[in-house]
Amino acid sequence: MSPLSASLSALIGQPVQNIDTPALVVDLDAMNRNLGRMAEFAKKHGLRWRPHAKLHKSVQLAKLQIAAGAVGICVQKTAEAEIMVAGGINNIYISNQVIAPGKLARVAALTQAVAPLSGQIAIAVDSIEGVSRLAQAMTEARTGGARNKTATVIDVFVEIDVGQGRCGVAPGEEAVALALEIRKHPALRFAGLQAYHGKAQHLRGVQERDEAIAEAVDAVLLTRHLMEAQGIKVALVTGTGTGTLVLEAASGVYGELQAGSFMFMDADYAQNERHPAQPKFEHALFVKTQVISTHADHAVCDAGHKSHAIDSGLPLVYAFDNQSVLDYFNGGDEHGILRPAAGSTRLPKLGDLLWLIPGHCDPTVNLHNVMIGVTDGLRHGTVQSIIRVDGRGAMT
Amino acid sequence: MSPLSASLSALIGQPVQNIDTPALVVDLDAMNRNLGRMAEFAKKHGLRWRPHAKLHKSVQLAKLQIAAGAVGICVQKTAEAEIMVAGGINNIYISNQVIAPGKLARVAALTQAVAPLSGQIAIAVDSIEGVSRLAQAMTEARTGGARNKTATVIDVFVEIDVGQGRCGVAPGEEAVALALEIRKHPALRFAGLQAYHGKAQHLRGVQERDEAIAEAVDAVLLTRHLMEAQGIKVALVTGTGTGTLVLEAASGVYGELQAGSFMFMDADYAQNERHPAQPKFEHALFVKTQVISTHADHAVCDAGHKSHAIDSGLPLVYAFDNQSVLDYFNGGDEHGILRPAAGSTRLPKLGDLLWLIPGHCDPTVNLHNVMIGVTDGLRHGTVQSIIRVDGRGAMT
Repeated sequence: MSPLSASLSALIGQPVQNIDTPALVVDLDAMNRNLGRMAEFAKKHGLRWRPHAKLHKSVQLAKLQIAAGAVGICVQKTAEAEIMVAGGINNIYISNQVIAPGKLARVAALTQAVAPLSGQIAIAVDSIEGVSRLAQAMTEARTGGARNKTATVIDVFVEIDVGQGRCGVAPGEEAVALALEIRKHPALRFAGLQAYHGKAQHLRGVQERDEAIAEAVDAVLLTRHLMEAQGIKVALVTGTGTGTLVLEAASGVYGELQAGSFMFMDADYAQNERHPAQPKFEHALFVKTQVISTHADHAVCDAGHKSHAIDSGLPLVYAFDNQSVLDYFNGGDEHGILRPAAGSTRLPKLGDLLWLIPGHCDPTVNLHNVMIGVTDGLRHGTVQSIIRVDGRGAMT
Repeated sequence: MSPLSASLSALIGQPVQNIDTPALVVDLDAMNRNLGRMAEFAKKHGLRWRPHAKLHKSVQLAKLQIAAGAVGICVQKTAEAEIMVAGGINNIYISNQVIAPGKLARVAALTQAVAPLSGQIAIAVDSIEGVSRLAQAMTEARTGGARNKTATVIDVFVEIDVGQGRCGVAPGEEAVALALEIRKHPALRFAGLQAYHGKAQHLRGVQERDEAIAEAVDAVLLTRHLMEAQGIKVALVTGTGTGTLVLEAASGVYGELQAGSFMFMDADYAQNERHPAQPKFEHALFVKTQVISTHADHAVCDAGHKSHAIDSGLPLVYAFDNQSVLDYFNGGDEHGILRPAAGSTRLPKLGDLLWLIPGHCDPTVNLHNVMIGVTDGLRHGTVQSIIRVDGRGAMT
């Protein structure tokens, strides 16, 4: 009767059939193939690969990525970085702006925490105010408290807006001014440019994505040129996601790939026209669900939008060879409505088990306490691991 | 450096200003006023009130509701019921279909767990198969295991579809057949009808909602008439939500109100034309967020759709008297884009703190580990309590 029982919908060694629903299930074989393809891709292009752990928020999977060749991980939140450091990861890039002095003190504390392990923390900035607040926090971390502190340095990337229209300064002079500001502070090390084009990831056509990344590359080149004219070396340009990684990799400008979603591949990314040079990534993340109510024209399953994110569209119903082809409609927080897809008339039966491919992996994982890792397929496989979503709800 | 630090964005006794962002904040004064108004409303109409705890998933708030006059709580999931029973709540209605034998065994175990406390578990059904599986689980719970078990009985509501088009049998003969089936099993007690009209909650106009609930009432009356003709007493009709509660209350047919959202009031419900007889419910749930990046035409805050649900629309930016009027646009998982609303040109400054009213409370709460309870307002108030979202992610 422990509340924890609610989280344990599967036991290691059991058949996949026994996993209680709804549950987030990782096809470990597919995931490992994706991981191998990405590691090979990065190696072939001689690029650093620092995948974004905002996808999985899991120490276990971060370690798996590092074992596969990643140089470290990216996170989006200070709290995510804390959880990863607590889990033993010590090369972490917070690829986002942090402004609150209390949070910056925590970032600075992280540089102290990883220093004995020769670890390195990095962060993005897009304002002079952000730089000076960060510098102040770093100085205070060196001098504050009773213990003797290490004179740690934080890597600082200047974020430029390469077309996303969200964070980042304009490419060019504004970025140069920020780099110069960073260099004034001994505890900050100008590490290069953050040049991530979020919108480009989801442009469907190869040519559209190509054009978007070509503009991003121009923006990076302009900025780098101006910086070098001032004697500022741009050691690294970091960015890219699963949608465009082949384009940044081919650019000769980007030195680090942040792509993470390829590991699970969601329904949204699968809708992109695949670039011929992009490794073939397979769906590896599923929501297992059960039919709990049947009707003449529809069936109802037990997975609604408390089980999967809907920001990038509703999930797709995975169709095994001999299964009905079904469309999923929103049935609210805890229900999904299933209807026969075009060309089909068959509906599932009461108690049938179905597998949904989430529209968007990152916020779907964040809804779950654990992922159930299975091997040998979704039908006849076995539960091999329970993967904790350590950073679930870590949002500060 | 404990991962837990990530969850604690506030300390009791601190000013509201100090709450780290993003954070889910409850205005306890507004919440308690809402609670008082609802309790008074139910009392005035002589109705049972069993609020849906899927909203808050919190043992602490469930106890507060019961102290205010609720007879117990509703939940949507077996795992939620387990957490509530573990927390000391013993009158729980799982207002949903449960089909998996493993889950039904857990439901039956809950009837055993609350029996020494004179507690009562209830559940909804909408199929003959569901009834017989439930009966089997109840029988096994009585006889299985080493200990001497109590001969517990579970209350069973027949769910009829009163216009939602999701779960529930058709009103009339099909419902009668289910009630008859329930009566065959000594461990099941036919408790009445589940007649919840989810879609009607969000119809904007009073008249539209009135018409929808009038149809629901007709469906209930038809079904009750047919049942009574067979000598089946319909002891209770349960349903309603925040959008229509005055209509069901006035019907003379419904005996129990399940409304829960009124306690927090989200942006979606606030868009409904208020029925003159509906108590005035105030917004009591907010996402506190900070501006982390500023630009000529927009600002960026640190709350995206990992901080609030977007299934019922994006959040509104709460405008204090002297604050800019802002529109919120989706900026992805961890960012919100803010632009001046029509008629305004002012943008917030870097570091400014803003308050968002979520589009939909239930799935927003499910994204957070805790809610921060504050008194004396959002500007100058004080943190009074940390409210655990005990059932967060409890979805089986």
